[in-house]
Amino acid sequence: MSLSALIAIGGNSLIQAGQRGTIDEQYQNARATANSIVKMIASGWNVIITHGNGPQVGAALLRSERASTEVYTHPLDMCVATTQGEIGYIIQRAMQFELQAAGLIRQVVTLPTMVRVNADDRAFKNPSKPIGPFYEKKVAEQRKRQLGWDIIEDAARGYRRVVASPEPVEVLELELIKTISEMGIITIALGGGGIPVISDGKFFKGCEAVIDKDRSSALLASSAKVDLFVICTEVDQVYLNYKKNNQKGLTVATIDELEQYAADGQFPAGSMGPKIESVIKFIGNGGKKAIITSFDKLMEALSGSAGTLIEL
Amino acid sequence: MSLSALIAIGGNSLIQAGQRGTIDEQYQNARATANSIVKMIASGWNVIITHGNGPQVGAALLRSERASTEVYTHPLDMCVATTQGEIGYIIQRAMQFELQAAGLIRQVVTLPTMVRVNADDRAFKNPSKPIGPFYEKKVAEQRKRQLGWDIIEDAARGYRRVVASPEPVEVLELELIKTISEMGIITIALGGGGIPVISDGKFFKGCEAVIDKDRSSALLASSAKVDLFVICTEVDQVYLNYKKNNQKGLTVATIDELEQYAADGQFPAGSMGPKIESVIKFIGNGGKKAIITSFDKLMEALSGSAGTLIEL
Repeated sequence: MSLSALIAIGGNSLIQAGQRGTIDEQYQNARATANSIVKMIASGWNVIITHGNGPQVGAALLRSERASTEVYTHPLDMCVATTQGEIGYIIQRAMQFELQAAGLIRQVVTLPTMVRVNADDRAFKNPSKPIGPFYEKKVAEQRKRQLGWDIIEDAARGYRRVVASPEPVEVLELELIKTISEMGIITIALGGGGIPVISDGKFFKGCEAVIDKDRSSALLASSAKVDLFVICTEVDQVYLNYKKNNQKGLTVATIDELEQYAADGQFPAGSMGPKIESVIKFIGNGGKKAIITSFDKLMEALSGSAGTLIEL
Repeated sequence: MSLSALIAIGGNSLIQAGQRGTIDEQYQNARATANSIVKMIASGWNVIITHGNGPQVGAALLRSERASTEVYTHPLDMCVATTQGEIGYIIQRAMQFELQAAGLIRQVVTLPTMVRVNADDRAFKNPSKPIGPFYEKKVAEQRKRQLGWDIIEDAARGYRRVVASPEPVEVLELELIKTISEMGIITIALGGGGIPVISDGKFFKGCEAVIDKDRSSALLASSAKVDLFVICTEVDQVYLNYKKNNQKGLTVATIDELEQYAADGQFPAGSMGPKIESVIKFIGNGGKKAIITSFDKLMEALSGSAGTLIEL
């Protein structure tokens, strides 16, 4: 039986610096990513692909707002749902292309995914995740008054909406994702970290929040008991003293070491922090191996000659 | 083993006359629809749900256009993909609610679906399906010049974009839909008639078209060999001389009879026409039973006391 891996990729990886992010650009970028993943599949891995949606959900919110006097608006949970359709369609075709090009016959499917969060998660009291466009102060204050938004000031660029980023508790489509993946079908799931829903004990209701995609990917990787959890990011491995004179790449690390480095402030909250926290959680919950690397180093990382390997 | 049914519902059924179509309104309307489908499930049926996206894809196009100077735009195939995420999320939660309320434990899944069409389908030479907002003449002509749109004049309301509505050839996710449905999972698929893609022999590419959801539903119903194909619409059954003094409801009809009525001009192209064509195709391809009815009559139609039953 094949080994199974969950590979988490960033929504940003589909839109390169300087690009507007047209669907063609996103598709071409997805092809590069898919190319690496297909090599992994060719070498025997069975994969679940999860992805972020940062720039795409920002664009979705802006589209909804700009047309709000003419057509019904999309609340944030709905924007996440539409980006699952959008990005799934992009990655699915990119994977199909690269699989064909490699002579592999494998099905690929996109699975829209809901993730349960707790209604009393303290994140709802302290919305901290910036989302969507920047506004002038006056407009931002109007939105705050009229729509109840939480607003922060971004030093250089203006005012921005912030939303809660609660802890993922349960991937509602877990059993289905496991079943489909075990059938050997390449599964794209958990887009944008999952559509955040709360439960009143019986029924599910969407909520205005976004879930960190690395955190929900760790939850899915643990619950689905995959053999390997890969976080693909912009850097080729985890660095200590990142971008300083004494920068040092980590080839292997235990979760105890990572916890110590994190406590020493090595990993900033906005970037490497949640990734480190997520691999620690995966390994802590019984996972065997996790890797943090970039796409072009994926195959090398699997053989131990690149990336950062995290074990117990 | 349960009998299987494919139920096609209109995108319009989620937005009632006079409603703006807020997500809450759509969800409440979906609940009413789901309530009928759950009764059918409770009586032993295994169902695949397909749906249209008329008003929703129009709104998606308009949102994309209104924000087009600020963020990347969504071509039409991408708008279909996002509405599959949108409407799937609405129907899925409505089904989950009504299943719970009925004390049934069943999984529900949304499956984004691509449908292959022929690049040389003559519909591409004669775009005829109006889509999106109405424009003033000047704006419409500008769009025609700048974006290559085909435009028609709508007698009363202005100018409107028309796109091709090609014949569906193959549901790419067919095997997966069959497998998941046979597992007893309630499957929402083929949203908006499916994302239209063309193939160059090896690779799939989206195209600027929409596929009639009744036609692709007939294709899926035939290919998946379901026992029953149901088209839910606004009228409770098929009528001859509809809205005339001598209007007459059809309780049962053979496909020969329907073909004769169609040849006599009984079914207008924009409304009942494609539904009649679709049930004829399903039965002609070996299907056993089809029903055309409205949601509130669904259970009665199954027992033969309402709706129109179509057989060979």
